[in-house]
Amino acid sequence: MRPSGRESGALRAVSLTPGAARHAEGSCLIRMGVTEVLCTASVEGKVPPFLRGQGQGWVTAEYGMLPRATHTRGDREAARGKQSGRTQEIQRLIGRSLRAVTDMKAMGEMTVTIDCDVLTADGGTRCASITGAWVALHLAFEHCRRMNILTRNPLRDQVAAVSCGVWQGTPVLDLDYAEDSKADADANFVLTGAGGIVEVQGTAEGAPFTDAELLALLGLARSGTAELFARQREAVGL
Amino acid sequence: MRPSGRESGALRAVSLTPGAARHAEGSCLIRMGVTEVLCTASVEGKVPPFLRGQGQGWVTAEYGMLPRATHTRGDREAARGKQSGRTQEIQRLIGRSLRAVTDMKAMGEMTVTIDCDVLTADGGTRCASITGAWVALHLAFEHCRRMNILTRNPLRDQVAAVSCGVWQGTPVLDLDYAEDSKADADANFVLTGAGGIVEVQGTAEGAPFTDAELLALLGLARSGTAELFARQREAVGL
Amino acid sequence: MRPSGRESGALRAVSLTPGAARHAEGSCLIRMGVTEVLCTASVEGKVPPFLRGQGQGWVTAEYGMLPRATHTRGDREAARGKQSGRTQEIQRLIGRSLRAVTDMKAMGEMTVTIDCDVLTADGGTRCASITGAWVALHLAFEHCRRMNILTRNPLRDQVAAVSCGVWQGTPVLDLDYAEDSKADADANFVLTGAGGIVEVQGTAEGAPFTDAELLALLGLARSGTAELFARQREAVGL
Amino acid sequence: MRPSGRESGALRAVSLTPGAARHAEGSCLIRMGVTEVLCTASVEGKVPPFLRGQGQGWVTAEYGMLPRATHTRGDREAARGKQSGRTQEIQRLIGRSLRAVTDMKAMGEMTVTIDCDVLTADGGTRCASITGAWVALHLAFEHCRRMNILTRNPLRDQVAAVSCGVWQGTPVLDLDYAEDSKADADANFVLTGAGGIVEVQGTAEGAPFTDAELLALLGLARSGTAELFARQREAVGL
Amino acid sequence: MRPSGRESGALRAVSLTPGAARHAEGSCLIRMGVTEVLCTASVEGKVPPFLRGQGQGWVTAEYGMLPRATHTRGDREAARGKQSGRTQEIQRLIGRSLRAVTDMKAMGEMTVTIDCDVLTADGGTRCASITGAWVALHLAFEHCRRMNILTRNPLRDQVAAVSCGVWQGTPVLDLDYAEDSKADADANFVLTGAGGIVEVQGTAEGAPFTDAELLALLGLARSGTAELFARQREAVGL
Amino acid sequence: MRPSGRESGALRAVSLTPGAARHAEGSCLIRMGVTEVLCTASVEGKVPPFLRGQGQGWVTAEYGMLPRATHTRGDREAARGKQSGRTQEIQRLIGRSLRAVTDMKAMGEMTVTIDCDVLTADGGTRCASITGAWVALHLAFEHCRRMNILTRNPLRDQVAAVSCGVWQGTPVLDLDYAEDSKADADANFVLTGAGGIVEVQGTAEGAPFTDAELLALLGLARSGTAELFARQREAVGL
Repeated sequence: MRPSGRESGALRAVSLTPGAARHAEGSCLIRMGVTEVLCTASVEGKVPPFLRGQGQGWVTAEYGMLPRATHTRGDREAARGKQSGRTQEIQRLIGRSLRAVTDMKAMGEMTVTIDCDVLTADGGTRCASITGAWVALHLAFEHCRRMNILTRNPLRDQVAAVSCGVWQGTPVLDLDYAEDSKADADANFVLTGAGGIVEVQGTAEGAPFTDAELLALLGLARSGTAELFARQREAVGL
Repeated sequence: MRPSGRESGALRAVSLTPGAARHAEGSCLIRMGVTEVLCTASVEGKVPPFLRGQGQGWVTAEYGMLPRATHTRGDREAARGKQSGRTQEIQRLIGRSLRAVTDMKAMGEMTVTIDCDVLTADGGTRCASITGAWVALHLAFEHCRRMNILTRNPLRDQVAAVSCGVWQGTPVLDLDYAEDSKADADANFVLTGAGGIVEVQGTAEGAPFTDAELLALLGLARSGTAELFARQREAVGL
Repeated sequence: MRPSGRESGALRAVSLTPGAARHAEGSCLIRMGVTEVLCTASVEGKVPPFLRGQGQGWVTAEYGMLPRATHTRGDREAARGKQSGRTQEIQRLIGRSLRAVTDMKAMGEMTVTIDCDVLTADGGTRCASITGAWVALHLAFEHCRRMNILTRNPLRDQVAAVSCGVWQGTPVLDLDYAEDSKADADANFVLTGAGGIVEVQGTAEGAPFTDAELLALLGLARSGTAELFARQREAVGL
Repeated sequence: MRPSGRESGALRAVSLTPGAARHAEGSCLIRMGVTEVLCTASVEGKVPPFLRGQGQGWVTAEYGMLPRATHTRGDREAARGKQSGRTQEIQRLIGRSLRAVTDMKAMGEMTVTIDCDVLTADGGTRCASITGAWVALHLAFEHCRRMNILTRNPLRDQVAAVSCGVWQGTPVLDLDYAEDSKADADANFVLTGAGGIVEVQGTAEGAPFTDAELLALLGLARSGTAELFARQREAVGL
Repeated sequence: MRPSGRESGALRAVSLTPGAARHAEGSCLIRMGVTEVLCTASVEGKVPPFLRGQGQGWVTAEYGMLPRATHTRGDREAARGKQSGRTQEIQRLIGRSLRAVTDMKAMGEMTVTIDCDVLTADGGTRCASITGAWVALHLAFEHCRRMNILTRNPLRDQVAAVSCGVWQGTPVLDLDYAEDSKADADANFVLTGAGGIVEVQGTAEGAPFTDAELLALLGLARSGTAELFARQREAVGL
Repeated sequence: MRPSGRESGALRAVSLTPGAARHAEGSCLIRMGVTEVLCTASVEGKVPPFLRGQGQGWVTAEYGMLPRATHTRGDREAARGKQSGRTQEIQRLIGRSLRAVTDMKAMGEMTVTIDCDVLTADGGTRCASITGAWVALHLAFEHCRRMNILTRNPLRDQVAAVSCGVWQGTPVLDLDYAEDSKADADANFVLTGAGGIVEVQGTAEGAPFTDAELLALLGLARSGTAELFARQREAVGL
């Protein structure tokens, strides 16, 4: 029995609330169990210097955590004067994941900045961020269509993410904080609606893991993201 | 008629939701109209170096705004590597306001850090932060009582804040963003339950204001905070 | 009897020395008792990005303290790599106060940067900075007139500041460092020559203050600034 | 035919030069084709604060690139005042990879800091860093044994890394810079001598990759690291 | 004829005002022509970590320039968030120069921090800083003697500095800003009362200089510092 | 007998390896005994803002040390977030020394950035940097000639540097680390092929030095650089 009492292949309770941020062109509040991330998509009609004049767009992401999203208060990164390595790693991952399913040529010279801010943390915040960010991005693109800034939605596919781990020898889906801290190994999978792998990041905390375990985790992730894709479609009305 | 359609002495719709942050010792989500601030109080059993060994506690505050809390996206302070002057000014104000009603001797060697994070901004975020922070602080102290860390709640009084302004020659209560940007002058008042003035910060954006106007604004603030004090008492069950 | 031995409504000895900085377009060394602040105004023929092309000017301020301006040496902010919250709060206040009496349209696309550097600190440095800065700014504008860069002086009025406080229940004018650290409450008032209130910043360090005390402090400030306005006029030859 | 002319399963020419840094307790200059990384291991008789008094050691890593290691000069991170997200991501990966094969209890209270500095970059610098760092770490631990600071070498196994990618539909081993920039997907594998997976980081730059491709890349990585493990053993005289 | 009209071996008008900073243990305002530097010496009863427990003291220096000390306003280093290379170079030079004539064993575990802040700049600020700093340091040590913190003054000798340069082929003493910017070469000499060379920093801006020129500049510096030593002795009452 | 066993006028074994960095337009690995510095010259077709439109070029330098170039590991400046005062002083010196022998008008609007990175440190790294950097710069200019970017090499002369010191009363050439840390005084001389002095930086660590000693050190430096100039010519094929 895993600590959460869930079955090995069960996701936590998931909810995706579109439009949770009043001012953003697109937004989504995602809850995975206790974990809660507010994702917003902000549209700006220009691109970073390295892309200027190339007739294409850009999608980028920033990630943050409220100081008391966690069990004990963490430093406020703005007060400390720099983002941690972990924060930078996560925001780079979110950005890459969304760009993998976006037709940036179809965007024209426009930047969408995704902000993922963790209101409550209980494990899996980077995966929840990606899943929620896709909804925010989709809604922002739809907003641009309604404003006649875009003629079609540049998203080519869905993208969602989930973490899996090996807990006492058993592969399990969607680790919460208590499980994550005791797992032997864990892996985050970012998958597309069509079944492709966009990112896989596996890390053995204790014993290294085997090829068979990696495949088992991938299988769990595929079934978990199937449910997440359905929730994303509901949230954006597809 | 003021832009919001409210009468000159009317507050926006106010709600104070205690316990909005799962992990914090005390917390409150305050809404003043569209403005929404999550206030948490985190307790730590030590004091800053300048107070060590003096047998008293400390209350301090940090303030932040999600990048897309505003109409157009603002820079993330953590990414820019420093907090703006405005942010620092506000968090110093919140800290001073709470310390003014706290018996720091009664706390023992303990620090409470208040985090006020603006989820949605529509004017008056610093005042809403103070009003909500008092609730979070009260609840954190009650938590310490239940844990037998404190024998009594060190809060001596309530504290709440509201902004007032002169709009087309008329003093009005509780400016929203649209009103604030057009007001001739505005003033933030931090008042205690007993009626004392803890802080007053008045700034003439356009024409300087007169003594009579300052007094009129103070009168409005006193009636506005009376309502806020009632809401705070409800929120903490007093 | 207040610590300084002064009567409740007495300013410290004031002197304003125009032209104290050889290279600046305008400058003033202000002394309020022991407190000594060198104020310079530097003119540059362009405006910050947010104002470009709008045909108006800008006045901004920076504030600093020599490390040994104080009784014990403070950190050099340049060595520490950032300005404190207090410094930023003060320089924002100085800038706002001067802009409140400047016709920025009449400046054309020009920026005046005011530097207020405290050579000796004994309380009241932010107020002295504002009072001295007005002289420096006036002289810089006059310099621009002589150079035919401006046809008239864009200052619409004088502005000066003074701090007041409640000392053992008595409202007193122009706190020095020893008085400031023992006062129950203190307030800084920035007033115009015409009698308007540009800024009021009142803070209760100990017991909150009452409406009557606030008014009494404002009355003292008004009489104190009357004297400061006279000194400013002398300094600039009006 | 891949750009480098190598067969799909061929590594670049590899050389590992132990003792390349005169002052370090352990060091190794690794060359993978043109890529050249100097790895040093520095021993210090204390641990970071979060581990004090727990009787265990720590292994950590830092990574850097000489400004002109690359085809066009990059900014010097020390001059810019911060390490990029990429640098932080890589140095965290190197540290985790080495800790996965180190018995930190057997180290006692000692920290080994690995520095991986890229002298010439031509793709695969993070993987080369890990492979070379293991040699430097092994030599540093042997140095401690000779100095009677350790009674046995705390390394439990070897660890090495290699990048693989999908190039025009074909899985290929050990991408150089030209191949990496054109690959559809690439994955870095960190494997142990015993065959376990310590880290896998796969990223689809263009089209997402399939399960079969992931497995094919893993297979290539396993054969590539077999050769790297042999070279490591030669370099340390096992 | 040199630009300043002075003869080749003439110093500018020099004045050294001891006690110019009210709060510091020792201070001196030095004027060399238009150049004006306020030097303070602050005593603290502890030493930096690398000297703890060695029974000796430390003398260190910091240097700054008011933003409008110069003809056109320079950036405020505190606002920019770092000290320039030039500033760091100068403050290191001042510190080394003073330590060269201080018996640090005789100080006990005490640090004296010298602050040299340029109020007006017209060339030669680093040299003036050293000459003035010696007076401030001497006075601070005398203060410690009066307080019975020291039994004797730890200064072993005087130290003073002057810049010389080659102007249109002629070696000249004590360059002002206009001369400095046109000189072919200039050199700063830090000399002791006993005639020893503590520091020499010569730089050819245009044509390199010859051995003969270097010697000629050294000769001028020796005569110039003779006058400065006399002024220092007057200032401290020796 | 000096610690190194060398005669007073003997350089350490010197080698200059041109082309040591594969990607740079010009490069040189210089070894002076154990000290080892990699110097690269990177050409960019534009100039810094302060030179734009003046039809001349610029030569600038950056300096760094690998963390374990030294006997005990030093902090990585990129991780600490700033360059030390020493680093900045050295890179400014390298830049000035090279500019002194470069005809910047002959460069056109082009910048050459010299990077000097110390791989192994054993004293004299700033001097070795200058000597090696000249070779890298020469080769980069020759590269530009071959590419028809320049019609002639803008270097007017050679420049090389060596440190000398007074060791137990005897002037000696080319201090290594052990000698440097025990010398009474040391001086770095930057000389041109034609015999001119570009920079002299003498510092008395212990007793001040005399005019005679300064001249003796200069004489040693002249004979030492004669050998270095020969090696530079060999390295660039002159």
